[in-house]
Amino acid sequence: MINYIKSGTITSVPGFSAGAVKSGIKTQKKLDLGLLYCDTPCIAAAVLTTNQIKAAPVIVSKKHLASRTAQAIIVNSGCANACVAEQGLADAQEMVELTAAKLKINVEDILVASTGLIGMPLPMDKIRNGIEAISLDCQGGHKLARAIMTTDTKPKEVAVEVSHQKDKYIIAGISKGAGMIHPHMATMLCFIATNALVKPEFLQQSLDIAVSNSFNLIDVDGDTSTNDSVFLLASGSANNKILDNENGEEFQKALNETCIYLAKSMVKDAEGATKFIEVIVEGAVTQSSARQIARDITSSNLVKTAMFGNDPNWGRIMAVLGMTGAKVIESKIDISINNVCVFKQGHPVSFDNEALRANMSSNADVFLEVKLNMGIERAVAWGSDLSEAYVRINSAYST
Amino acid sequence: MINYIKSGTITSVPGFSAGAVKSGIKTQKKLDLGLLYCDTPCIAAAVLTTNQIKAAPVIVSKKHLASRTAQAIIVNSGCANACVAEQGLADAQEMVELTAAKLKINVEDILVASTGLIGMPLPMDKIRNGIEAISLDCQGGHKLARAIMTTDTKPKEVAVEVSHQKDKYIIAGISKGAGMIHPHMATMLCFIATNALVKPEFLQQSLDIAVSNSFNLIDVDGDTSTNDSVFLLASGSANNKILDNENGEEFQKALNETCIYLAKSMVKDAEGATKFIEVIVEGAVTQSSARQIARDITSSNLVKTAMFGNDPNWGRIMAVLGMTGAKVIESKIDISINNVCVFKQGHPVSFDNEALRANMSSNADVFLEVKLNMGIERAVAWGSDLSEAYVRINSAYST
Repeated sequence: MINYIKSGTITSVPGFSAGAVKSGIKTQKKLDLGLLYCDTPCIAAAVLTTNQIKAAPVIVSKKHLASRTAQAIIVNSGCANACVAEQGLADAQEMVELTAAKLKINVEDILVASTGLIGMPLPMDKIRNGIEAISLDCQGGHKLARAIMTTDTKPKEVAVEVSHQKDKYIIAGISKGAGMIHPHMATMLCFIATNALVKPEFLQQSLDIAVSNSFNLIDVDGDTSTNDSVFLLASGSANNKILDNENGEEFQKALNETCIYLAKSMVKDAEGATKFIEVIVEGAVTQSSARQIARDITSSNLVKTAMFGNDPNWGRIMAVLGMTGAKVIESKIDISINNVCVFKQGHPVSFDNEALRANMSSNADVFLEVKLNMGIERAVAWGSDLSEAYVRINSAYST
Repeated sequence: MINYIKSGTITSVPGFSAGAVKSGIKTQKKLDLGLLYCDTPCIAAAVLTTNQIKAAPVIVSKKHLASRTAQAIIVNSGCANACVAEQGLADAQEMVELTAAKLKINVEDILVASTGLIGMPLPMDKIRNGIEAISLDCQGGHKLARAIMTTDTKPKEVAVEVSHQKDKYIIAGISKGAGMIHPHMATMLCFIATNALVKPEFLQQSLDIAVSNSFNLIDVDGDTSTNDSVFLLASGSANNKILDNENGEEFQKALNETCIYLAKSMVKDAEGATKFIEVIVEGAVTQSSARQIARDITSSNLVKTAMFGNDPNWGRIMAVLGMTGAKVIESKIDISINNVCVFKQGHPVSFDNEALRANMSSNADVFLEVKLNMGIERAVAWGSDLSEAYVRINSAYST
């Protein structure tokens, strides 16, 4: 059974504490440097950017993940520490060393992440003072969730309690980004903690599955940034029966739910977004084609602008369907918008355009349903609309 | 030698005439139905949409192109005749039959194209009356170029005269579309005529090459619409030495130039565009990777919005470089914006940000130059910026 914890955050997991300070990296005097710590070493899993241009903290974290253990994450916002050559690596390395000295743990057990502008070096003076000034608190997750924000307007936090047979444990996470709808440099970060006892291989496999069911379906993965990182730390202090492929189903479900919750929160807080678009593709031949099509629809500028305009312009969905890599058959396709069928078996359906527009105008959520009627596979993807505010934010966002 | 013909259009080619009428398909009483005719049958070549959802006129034209001859093109704007099931095919067929009867030529020698909204049937009463009312004129090309416009603000026309040894012939074309920057349904149309005598196989091969050097580099191909069509008719009346692989180099050059001219015109007239962005990629290992990277940069929403904001945000270019399918090496990359080097061999270069911003603000053209320093291949692609006006136009464009 999975229960959401009210006002839950990453430090709702026993043993985890966090803290954050306004170190001055952000000129606006906001929280910009944070630390997550567990009182015992944890099994660690991660999904890192597939972008060829990797920020320095991604490179350092990857090295530290080789042991599959970690005990702390040091993170800053306001500067991505990317594309600054060898200086970047030296700075990321210094960040983990300072943190190791502060916490008196192994350097290799510290992961590091940065998010913000590409192409400028980290202000290390501020970081040095900042790391020293951070104090850890067992309710510090809220502060940490705010410290990793860039163009986000609100923190993204979730915690669930899982009860399974005689075992009980908590999975909780925070995330930032998908600030950008088509986030070439969203610098998406997500940290997840749990006190469940999990086999290392199973932990990584579960995270891969959860990411492909959540962050990879919100228009984030195709456009990986230089800094995208999802870290998962499992302390094992819940003393449950160790979880693996045999008995990990409930854990997987809860981890999926945690990631989907955070992914949706990111879409809802996308830059300039006025709509939350859920695309359901049914009747595909393969799971991967269903996902591909759902993602292609959520990432189409023309579908996005139509949704912004409350326009049930199904022709744009058809154009995307024909363009996608997966095979489709025009005469089999059905399309519904907010449960109104607008296209059936290759034929336009006459519908009350004004009524549907009014319905779309009065709802922030839009449901686009596409039935391919070719197979039994199904996928759901989530996206935001494309508004004039998006353009304003992204043309003004300074180098 | 290639000379541009002043105020040239498709009917600058001897033997070709054209006409257009306001048939009433468009509610705004604009030219919306046009006809191109040659006084002799022509060798025909074409590049048609690769979208799986093909509009009815594309299907009919493809059938008629099997013979590799054509003598006329009938075209309407305001309605794409796409996604209307069997009715669409019947209507496209009737359009070519009415035109054949009017011109007293074979039905199979007529190509047909439609552009406009997807999902509504053609108003055939208006089309029937319209086809009857069209009168052909040997200077009718300008009118035809206007008749195929949808969200275009101006017609796109070009004519060049080619002199090669003792031979002289003309290549001329008109086009519409790339109204949309990321034109999932740009319904790009382009008609090209020439009086050159050309072997059929060479004609098709030349057109394929010219399209890959022009329309495929303007963010049009990746996002094919249901109606994209490029038609090329060669009458042979210039009586030149018949052109083929051996002696066709000059023809190829002129055809490339014609297509590039029209492609650039389409980008310059892109919806809501305030900037014309030229992306030059040098030092790639393969030609295809150079093209891929150049196109990926021109189609990035974040690069587009940065250019709209006159922001020399090279970090966004780096993020695209890392995301593209082709291999890149961070430490070898150089980037220039309007000839100012901003990134060199993996290191940010300090530059006068204010001066570069001012320079970008005062120019409608932006030059982005990326040197990969890995090989010797080079490609150029063209794109427009992403403005608030784009969103306005595309959210208001009605179903």
